[in-house]
Amino acid sequence: MKVDAAKGLAINARRIRAKLVDFIRDELLKARYGRLVIGLSGGVDSAVSAFLGVEAVGAANVVGVLMPYRASQPSSVTDAMAVVNKLGIKHHAIDITAPVDALAKEFGLSGDDNAARLRLGNIMPRVRMITLYDMSVRERALVLGTSNKTELLLGYGTLYGDVACAINPLGDLYKTQVWQLAKRLRVPDGIIAKKPTADLWPGQTDEGELGLEYAEADKLLYLMLDRKLSEAKLFEAGFAPEFIGRVKRLILANQFKRRGPAVAQIARRKPNKDFEILK
Amino acid sequence: MKVDAAKGLAINARRIRAKLVDFIRDELLKARYGRLVIGLSGGVDSAVSAFLGVEAVGAANVVGVLMPYRASQPSSVTDAMAVVNKLGIKHHAIDITAPVDALAKEFGLSGDDNAARLRLGNIMPRVRMITLYDMSVRERALVLGTSNKTELLLGYGTLYGDVACAINPLGDLYKTQVWQLAKRLRVPDGIIAKKPTADLWPGQTDEGELGLEYAEADKLLYLMLDRKLSEAKLFEAGFAPEFIGRVKRLILANQFKRRGPAVAQIARRKPNKDFEILK
Repeated sequence: MKVDAAKGLAINARRIRAKLVDFIRDELLKARYGRLVIGLSGGVDSAVSAFLGVEAVGAANVVGVLMPYRASQPSSVTDAMAVVNKLGIKHHAIDITAPVDALAKEFGLSGDDNAARLRLGNIMPRVRMITLYDMSVRERALVLGTSNKTELLLGYGTLYGDVACAINPLGDLYKTQVWQLAKRLRVPDGIIAKKPTADLWPGQTDEGELGLEYAEADKLLYLMLDRKLSEAKLFEAGFAPEFIGRVKRLILANQFKRRGPAVAQIARRKPNKDFEILK
Repeated sequence: MKVDAAKGLAINARRIRAKLVDFIRDELLKARYGRLVIGLSGGVDSAVSAFLGVEAVGAANVVGVLMPYRASQPSSVTDAMAVVNKLGIKHHAIDITAPVDALAKEFGLSGDDNAARLRLGNIMPRVRMITLYDMSVRERALVLGTSNKTELLLGYGTLYGDVACAINPLGDLYKTQVWQLAKRLRVPDGIIAKKPTADLWPGQTDEGELGLEYAEADKLLYLMLDRKLSEAKLFEAGFAPEFIGRVKRLILANQFKRRGPAVAQIARRKPNKDFEILK
């Protein structure tokens, strides 16, 4: 039997949209919160999360936060403001340049080599996390996440940075599925059409940095993980062994980002399970 | 049957010490790392973690990081240095004042009221997390955590701040058990004897802020969670209903700190479980 990956990745956007709006409402209700705060990067993931958030709790209860760094593309701010304006939500703009540069200075980080870029690329999303969690207190709102399934699996995200949130509606949708949902939600075309980028330095694109195309990666991930095809079958389906190997290695090397800390167990009950007896 | 909480909390420090050293070694091996980085606050938890870390991988492979803020007590640095010197480990000192103040300024945080203190009290441990994770890359070392079971259960810690780490040896030991272990490990007496404090502002103590004594809280937590005593039995054991109620509320209100983000589930398999098929 030949599995059609493209067909498998096609979503019923109407159904998924309703399901995710319900999910956000349920999680807010459980946490006894009525408001959401969301970092708007100008990209499609944060746009889709914001659109879903507004459907869940109304524009008056969603706060967008723009957090540019001095090296950010001006179009990132323009695109984020397009989301703010289309949804009619309140927004804050917090420039992260001064705190990021203060950290880089304390860490003796200078130069523009690959190692320095990588370290700066982790500082920036973590400073944004601090900003969103401070805003969460100020606005009495929960942080709505924006990481999609492709990013989470490939580890293309910063632990305790952009991956950190209270509620993540997109974590089980591949990037190509987020695009489908974006169209349904009428996210501005420019945001859907542009090349995904973490916008950490000029010219950076996700696909360039990962060295793969989201369309191809999603097909492979779907067949490998959702359909559990063997390597032989994946090869038959047209994927190069090197590509299969690299994607597998990325998934395994980034396991730690999808798990909490390893906690030594001493007692019979684990601390993160203990609360259950109180319900 | 009357349960003796003090007896239940007494640990076999020799056995626990060996178990935790093995745990750290195993986790490093799994992650294919040989080195540890640890934030030294001058308190007993980070001292015990450092002592265990050195037993696990040797002094040459443990790096201590001191991260004072301008309001930190000078004794915090002195006590942290006592750990560095006793263990003979390498250390870095990173002053977090400039980045913390840069963040506070961007957030319009001023004044010394309770709300401002609380917000600053979250920024500081998160800036320390950024520092430790940057050090983790520089030193090719995993972040060894220091949160104990009492803190984790009562939520006395900052999510994505001091709670963040790769490996946590103390998460299943109550504070009073950490003290027992500290004696066994010959942690400097001054560190064991001093009042626990997050050292976020002058005169702050954990017990003052939590409004409870660790010795009492640990007994209640042990009877409530490990021994699953009913409220009636806890009352019989001498705990005031208000105290029981407050501890329960703290445990429940801080569940989110012990869990990852709520991720919407769409596919049959969850993204954080997917890697398992690759093993």
